[in-house]
Amino acid sequence: MEEWKLNPKGLRERIRKGDWARSTSGLCPGYVQANLVILPREFALEFLLFCERNPRPCPLLEVTDPGNPILREIAQGADLRTDLPAYRIFKDGQLIQEITDITLFWRDDLVSFLLGCSHTFDAILHRAGFVLPHFTENKTPCVFTTDIACKPAGPFSGPLVVSARAIPATRIPEVVLLTVRYKLAHGEPIHVGYPEGIGIYDFPRSEYGGTDLQLAPGELPVFWACGITPQAVAVASEIPWMITHKPGHMFVSDLTIEQIVN
Amino acid sequence: MEEWKLNPKGLRERIRKGDWARSTSGLCPGYVQANLVILPREFALEFLLFCERNPRPCPLLEVTDPGNPILREIAQGADLRTDLPAYRIFKDGQLIQEITDITLFWRDDLVSFLLGCSHTFDAILHRAGFVLPHFTENKTPCVFTTDIACKPAGPFSGPLVVSARAIPATRIPEVVLLTVRYKLAHGEPIHVGYPEGIGIYDFPRSEYGGTDLQLAPGELPVFWACGITPQAVAVASEIPWMITHKPGHMFVSDLTIEQIVN
Repeated sequence: MEEWKLNPKGLRERIRKGDWARSTSGLCPGYVQANLVILPREFALEFLLFCERNPRPCPLLEVTDPGNPILREIAQGADLRTDLPAYRIFKDGQLIQEITDITLFWRDDLVSFLLGCSHTFDAILHRAGFVLPHFTENKTPCVFTTDIACKPAGPFSGPLVVSARAIPATRIPEVVLLTVRYKLAHGEPIHVGYPEGIGIYDFPRSEYGGTDLQLAPGELPVFWACGITPQAVAVASEIPWMITHKPGHMFVSDLTIEQIVN
Repeated sequence: MEEWKLNPKGLRERIRKGDWARSTSGLCPGYVQANLVILPREFALEFLLFCERNPRPCPLLEVTDPGNPILREIAQGADLRTDLPAYRIFKDGQLIQEITDITLFWRDDLVSFLLGCSHTFDAILHRAGFVLPHFTENKTPCVFTTDIACKPAGPFSGPLVVSARAIPATRIPEVVLLTVRYKLAHGEPIHVGYPEGIGIYDFPRSEYGGTDLQLAPGELPVFWACGITPQAVAVASEIPWMITHKPGHMFVSDLTIEQIVN
């Protein structure tokens, strides 16, 4: 892998220049990746409450002051307007645009939320010998909307979204024990082996542009809470205006995975 | 439940008198239960190595000095010849007798091994709201022989035996995290949801007199290493002479489950 794909600063520089508008899955292994949600100040308190009540899909890594697009904690000086490969604009609960730079949309009342992402522990699983095609091929992982309702807060309510990985039955306990250590990257799975049990009827076809899940004999699907959940909530709750990352196209921080161990 | 079924000393007294020759499943919740293996001194070193190499099925709680049937550590003063509800005598790899007292078989060269048992964490799972019919009905849990080979030591080799519980798919991560804390009671599961993957073809019919597994919709079978393994090894390896407990009919110690948390 090229050097700039291993180093968050280098990667963000290329992204800012427009050289990488693809998924960040598999890039900068060992560094913490993040989902992005940007909301006007008038929605920020209730969304913060939403995160506090739904820590599994929405583990908070950093929240910016209103109007400030520059990060201080997880990647000092990074610019949220330009440093992600792709963004989505939601208006009244509809996805109206996908773009690679949101500078023209920036306003003085915007608050940004960086939420942990399961891309982070994929590096650990890969190193432990789990086969993760989305990770090795830099593709968005397999994602499903469930029938599990998030706990509401103000105008924010909607279904839990999950990412899925194919895990050998004999290694399921191990994958639980590996990922529980990273609550800030969604932690341990929320469900194992029975998609219908959480309202997934179109299994194994991924939503949100992810890779369909390939199950080998002896493997079961294992499901983790996913930071795409706020996008499903924006749609379900018809939130007037929200910017997010494009699924799989994450913010890559300077935090190492060791820094977020519980 | 009667008082004497809650208190290990009281229970052992009743067992000694011949008042309880049934499974100890569900009895004395919160106390550590143990598998028993008794071997002549000439086989003791190699069996100790077998336990050291196979800690998942054979977690060691106590080993007695040759010739001494009285425990010192996990239940001071308890007599291994009388204080279990039922025993099995194996000769040349064959089960030749089931009895409730082994006083007449005792010899000066016998070494006893007390190995942790999953009955111990059933109390924790029950308290956490998992439905465990074998626990509430004082029956031997569901048990299967797998095609996983234990690591051999001297004359001891054979297949891993597992106990199985029906767990809702959504609570499988939780059951892993609850049981991993009790490595001395077999720890976390070794397999989830795919019996054929570990050579179980007669699922859900229990071996060793256990309760057949009843799976409700949305539940998966979850498998833990089991202390019946040495009995399968005695048969597979044609060990000349071995005494064990009868499956499900365990030694109930004075240790509390809190004392064996990893």
